[in-house]
Amino acid sequence: MRTDKCIPDIATALREAGVRDGMTLSFHHHLRDGDFVVNRVLDALETLGVEGMRIALSSVFPVHEPLIRHIKSGLVRSLDTDYVSGPVAKAISSGILAQPVMFRSHGGRPRAIGEGSLHIDIACVAAPCVDGLGNINGSGGPSACGSLGYILPDAAHAGRVIAITDFVSKEPLRSISIPHSSVDYIVKVDTIGDPAGIVSGSINLTRDPVAHAIARNAQAVIRASGLLRDGFNYQTGAGGASLAASQYLREDMRRMGLHGGFLLGGITRYMVDMLEEKLFDAIFDVQCFDLHSVRSIAENAAHHEISADSYANPGRKSCYVDFLDVVLLGASEVDVNFNVNVHTDSNGMLIGGSGGHNDAAAGANMTIIVAPLVRARLPIVVERCTTITTPGASVDVLVTERGIAINPARAELAARLKEARLPLYSIEELRAMALNITGTPKKLALSDQVVGLVEYRNGTIIDSIYAIRDS
Amino acid sequence: MRTDKCIPDIATALREAGVRDGMTLSFHHHLRDGDFVVNRVLDALETLGVEGMRIALSSVFPVHEPLIRHIKSGLVRSLDTDYVSGPVAKAISSGILAQPVMFRSHGGRPRAIGEGSLHIDIACVAAPCVDGLGNINGSGGPSACGSLGYILPDAAHAGRVIAITDFVSKEPLRSISIPHSSVDYIVKVDTIGDPAGIVSGSINLTRDPVAHAIARNAQAVIRASGLLRDGFNYQTGAGGASLAASQYLREDMRRMGLHGGFLLGGITRYMVDMLEEKLFDAIFDVQCFDLHSVRSIAENAAHHEISADSYANPGRKSCYVDFLDVVLLGASEVDVNFNVNVHTDSNGMLIGGSGGHNDAAAGANMTIIVAPLVRARLPIVVERCTTITTPGASVDVLVTERGIAINPARAELAARLKEARLPLYSIEELRAMALNITGTPKKLALSDQVVGLVEYRNGTIIDSIYAIRDS
Repeated sequence: MRTDKCIPDIATALREAGVRDGMTLSFHHHLRDGDFVVNRVLDALETLGVEGMRIALSSVFPVHEPLIRHIKSGLVRSLDTDYVSGPVAKAISSGILAQPVMFRSHGGRPRAIGEGSLHIDIACVAAPCVDGLGNINGSGGPSACGSLGYILPDAAHAGRVIAITDFVSKEPLRSISIPHSSVDYIVKVDTIGDPAGIVSGSINLTRDPVAHAIARNAQAVIRASGLLRDGFNYQTGAGGASLAASQYLREDMRRMGLHGGFLLGGITRYMVDMLEEKLFDAIFDVQCFDLHSVRSIAENAAHHEISADSYANPGRKSCYVDFLDVVLLGASEVDVNFNVNVHTDSNGMLIGGSGGHNDAAAGANMTIIVAPLVRARLPIVVERCTTITTPGASVDVLVTERGIAINPARAELAARLKEARLPLYSIEELRAMALNITGTPKKLALSDQVVGLVEYRNGTIIDSIYAIRDS
Repeated sequence: MRTDKCIPDIATALREAGVRDGMTLSFHHHLRDGDFVVNRVLDALETLGVEGMRIALSSVFPVHEPLIRHIKSGLVRSLDTDYVSGPVAKAISSGILAQPVMFRSHGGRPRAIGEGSLHIDIACVAAPCVDGLGNINGSGGPSACGSLGYILPDAAHAGRVIAITDFVSKEPLRSISIPHSSVDYIVKVDTIGDPAGIVSGSINLTRDPVAHAIARNAQAVIRASGLLRDGFNYQTGAGGASLAASQYLREDMRRMGLHGGFLLGGITRYMVDMLEEKLFDAIFDVQCFDLHSVRSIAENAAHHEISADSYANPGRKSCYVDFLDVVLLGASEVDVNFNVNVHTDSNGMLIGGSGGHNDAAAGANMTIIVAPLVRARLPIVVERCTTITTPGASVDVLVTERGIAINPARAELAARLKEARLPLYSIEELRAMALNITGTPKKLALSDQVVGLVEYRNGTIIDSIYAIRDS
């Protein structure tokens, strides 16, 4: 018999779900810096008087600043996340949490959820569109964000699932991201997010000449690698050099008459354009970065939503990253062993996290790190990364505006790039070039308080993050 | 890094999957009486020399007759299924298996798989269409069968998953039923099934006057029930009276200008026609019964494939059957307590199984059993069912060609039908009418060998099935 899943407000839904001290509540970040749901739920928890909660939020944005207050009050005891930016990152670096943040990758998170090491008591879904049965998608409603890929594993495994929505469709949804069979409660609120913060209206190509110089070098590496052929599968982030490199790739593919396989990951208009131009067969989308991709995923049958589990969980029979030919990824630091840091900057300050970095790097045939040789008067190439996000074994090439370094373990690739007469250097040479510009930076002084643990995608803790010492 | 999942033949795939004595292998029945996959896998197991296997096959058809030989040889020790017909049913009734068959419902099966009580070592997917990554759907290829709903829980939970296919798409699939992240191996064979047996080219309406008389009475019950209103959700099987009743319902909905919610379950052209006529918003399809529905699920965005888990698993937060207003179901026997038998006939011979019978009956607001008063010179209404498939508590109305009986627990419904001046009788009166035609049947003599256990959808064993005594 049908039971009405609609609950008048978030606090009541949490109470119905049996919320109590010390539970783990999970959230996702598809509404990005426009998300209202995390803060609303924290406020509701406050009215309920619970404490010691673990918050498993796939990525933390500046909008989530109220977390700081709730950490200070004891409502929130620990964080489990793949990426942290903004005021919360700064607060973590200052040592606000007694318990280290568990940093996972986008593939490690569904692995941990599936295997039970991250047990979720209550999953709170920021649900742009819900129907009367409780089916959810991200494509409808005023707060449409497209793919809901990161919360699908949570919805499948959580003890209780609450859909928090601002749009209930009268008709059954045609496209279903989370089936009603996983949903316990539906709470209708006035709005779940600020459209201006949910997605950038559009992400624009950079004019920065350094980014373009990096992109040209990346283009040359891809061309020379032998991987650019029919069926080519590709992923890149939304950084300036990456986007520019993708434009150059697009030109190459047109000129060469190539037909690619799929585009993967977080999706921008530039990928949608390539799909619509039929340069690629499909997009597999775990997160939409802009309104173009939100529209595309709703309308184009070749633009698929995928779960973080299919995207990158190393415990599955295969995941999409396994089929990548090339991925372009950023770095705050690359060390002489090709280890990459995207968690902290060279001052030790928390600025991000793996996201899908170490997943895509592990999966791709060729992982290219694109970065300027020097950033904020500090060298990108360092002796040892402040934090290791992605082990050097997964990294094939570092591309900067001044030169290219190949992981010595990749002799065949080195031979190809050498033959193409690319500006190749050893990583130590790139480091020397950078130091020549910046001078030797003073040694970083960190406290011995561990504020974060870096879990590699397979579950191994590969590094710790330390509090910034008061200066 | 990508690994090639393609394996040259079934035996090699089974060996790679680590097959050994006593394991549980699972299969699905979407290829129905045209399925070649079960028999091919059994032959491969024979060449590997394993024994004592448990075969979990969602439904057994006449084509699966070779199972008998493999049971006799010791290769197959036990069966776990929702429905058995044809020679295997007869062999089970004769006591061929030392261990009773575990009979589940279509919703109980995914419950058992999800909770681990039915652990599947190797799931063998009869996969009409596979892409290079290992994604699977049922809509493409020469053996297209549409929905793959019954094997989705198996693919999600099995230790190893083998896709056996006769069609590998060069492009990534646009519609994905089973994601590659669940698939270990792909075996390409010449053909996975006989299209003539996979689906009936079309299922035709009966001209049997008894079926139409039953259907007219069912139509009158639905009309009088008060449930036929906008948003009406409906399920029916493919039996003659049910299909005819659906045609009458369609006429009623047209005349009344009603707009229904969804159609559910195993799908025929008559449901597709109603969807295309926009009498309903959506079809939720766990199995396609004919070529019209196979075409429709591939082309019509309002015709959805659903998992058996979402369809009917009582352990989920909700399932589709929970939202049914009316379901029409058949019976081989209905007893005076409204219990229904669809497992055995009145001679005790195994003739089927629950399928979704006790699931839909439990979920729907009104469960109507449609059956002739007398069948094969035996009364349909009996003192006590030979086997209980669906407890009387889930059954609201028995509709025959001669009269209608309402479960005494449904006083409000009885009042409505009485007001509509329908030919109402007590179930005992219907029984007396039937006996008046047939005379008192001789008492059934069964052996005391238990050949089947009937598990209700929630996991409770509610009845046993006994071997037919040699006569």
